[in-house]
Amino acid sequence: MQGTEQPAAPTTDAYAPTGRTVPTRSADRASYDKELVHAILDEGYVCHLGFVRDGAPVVLPTLYGRVGERLYVHGSTGSRPLRMAGQAAPEGRAEPGLAVCLTVTHVDGLVLARSAFHHSINYRSVVVHGVAHQVTDPEEKRAALDALVDHVVPGRAADSRPANTKELAATAVLRLDLEEVSAKLRTGGVNDEPEDLALPHWAGVVPVRREYGTPLADADLAPGTGLPGYLAEL
Amino acid sequence: MQGTEQPAAPTTDAYAPTGRTVPTRSADRASYDKELVHAILDEGYVCHLGFVRDGAPVVLPTLYGRVGERLYVHGSTGSRPLRMAGQAAPEGRAEPGLAVCLTVTHVDGLVLARSAFHHSINYRSVVVHGVAHQVTDPEEKRAALDALVDHVVPGRAADSRPANTKELAATAVLRLDLEEVSAKLRTGGVNDEPEDLALPHWAGVVPVRREYGTPLADADLAPGTGLPGYLAEL
Repeated sequence: MQGTEQPAAPTTDAYAPTGRTVPTRSADRASYDKELVHAILDEGYVCHLGFVRDGAPVVLPTLYGRVGERLYVHGSTGSRPLRMAGQAAPEGRAEPGLAVCLTVTHVDGLVLARSAFHHSINYRSVVVHGVAHQVTDPEEKRAALDALVDHVVPGRAADSRPANTKELAATAVLRLDLEEVSAKLRTGGVNDEPEDLALPHWAGVVPVRREYGTPLADADLAPGTGLPGYLAEL
Repeated sequence: MQGTEQPAAPTTDAYAPTGRTVPTRSADRASYDKELVHAILDEGYVCHLGFVRDGAPVVLPTLYGRVGERLYVHGSTGSRPLRMAGQAAPEGRAEPGLAVCLTVTHVDGLVLARSAFHHSINYRSVVVHGVAHQVTDPEEKRAALDALVDHVVPGRAADSRPANTKELAATAVLRLDLEEVSAKLRTGGVNDEPEDLALPHWAGVVPVRREYGTPLADADLAPGTGLPGYLAEL
C-alpha cells in the first residue's frame, strides 16, 4: 500500500544488524543504536555516496540531510547518480532505484602509539546500505531541500528564499531509508603492547575538531543586513 | 554543490582525463593537475574507499598514505576489502586485485546564498579510480606503512617502533596507482541570482578548517619523554 503515512514506530531503538552491517573484525566498535546513529549523522553535512557504474565503484562527496528515518541527497537532474536512480532497477528488484552506500565520518583524534602498528584514529562513522529512490512528491521534495540546508546551518532554511518552480524542476532529490545502518567508533587512548611502554616515544591522543572562522559577508548585502544569530552561535 | 566556477589551469604535468574522470556537469571545476592532486591528498589522512561486494557498493573510511604516484591503504589481513584484493580478479582482468574508488574531501567553507538553491560548500576533493593490489614486497610494505603513519603526523614514523615480523604478517597493504585521477574544487563566494541581491538575508561564506587540540599524553610515558617538535607544530 502506498501513501504518505509514517512507517510504524520501531519496536526497539536499534537497527537490526544484517550480514553487511556486522563487521568482520573489531565488532565491539560497532553500534546499531538509533540515537547514536542520528547524532553522528546530524553533526555532519557532507557524506560520501557510493554506487556502482559499469560494474565499478564510484564514491562522490555530497551534501545530505536527515528527516526522521530518511536521508536525502540532492543534485542536478543531469547528474549521474540522480539519473541512474530514476532509470535503473537494481538487481533482484523490480522498482527503479540506485543501490548505494552512504557513509559519514567524523575524525575526533589522532592516536599516536609508541609502536607504528598501534597508531590509530578516534572517529565516529555511520554506514547506510540501501536503495535510493527519486523523490517525486512535491511536499517531500521541499521538506528534503529544507533539511539539506538546515543540516549545514541549523535555522538557515527559514532565512533564505525557498526554491522556485524552475529551481525545483532542475533539482533531483534522492531518498534513502535508514534501515540497514551501523555506526562504528573508536574512542579513548593509546593501546600499546606492555613491552613497549618503556620506549622513549611520546604517546597520546591529539584531539581533532571542526572549527569555523569568522563569517565573510558578501559585498552586496542589502543595507541593514546583520549577522544572524544562528551564525554567531556556530 | 553548486556555485561559481574555478577554471582549471592548463598544465602538461597532468593526469589524462578518462570517461569516468570527466564530470557530466560543472566540468570547469575539475582539474587533472598532478601538483594540485598531490596537495589535496597530502593534506588528508582519511579517505573513503569504495568497492563492490555482491553487486552492491560499500564505502568505508580508512587511513591512506602517498608515495609518489602510489596510494596505500592498510588493514588487518582478515578485513574484507584486503582479502578481496588478494582473491578476486576484477571483470576483464586476469590478475588479482580489487576495483576501487578512493575519494578524499576537504571542506573549506559553507557558502550561504540568499536563495536556498544556491547554497553550497567550498571544498577540494580527489577521486581515484583503479584496481588495488596487495603489496607483497617487504620493502614496499614497510615504506607504505611509514607513509601511512607520516600522513597522519609528518615525522612520526621515525619516532615510533617499526612493525615487527608478527605485526607485518598481520597487516595487509593495498596499493592503488595514481593513473585515473581527478580533483574537483569549489572556491569563492556566493553566486546568487541578480534579482535576489536585495533580499534581506545575510549571505557570505563561513570558513571551515580542521583544528588540533592540546595533545593529551598517555599516563604511562617513559620518564623524560617530552612533546616532540612535530606535534607542537601541528
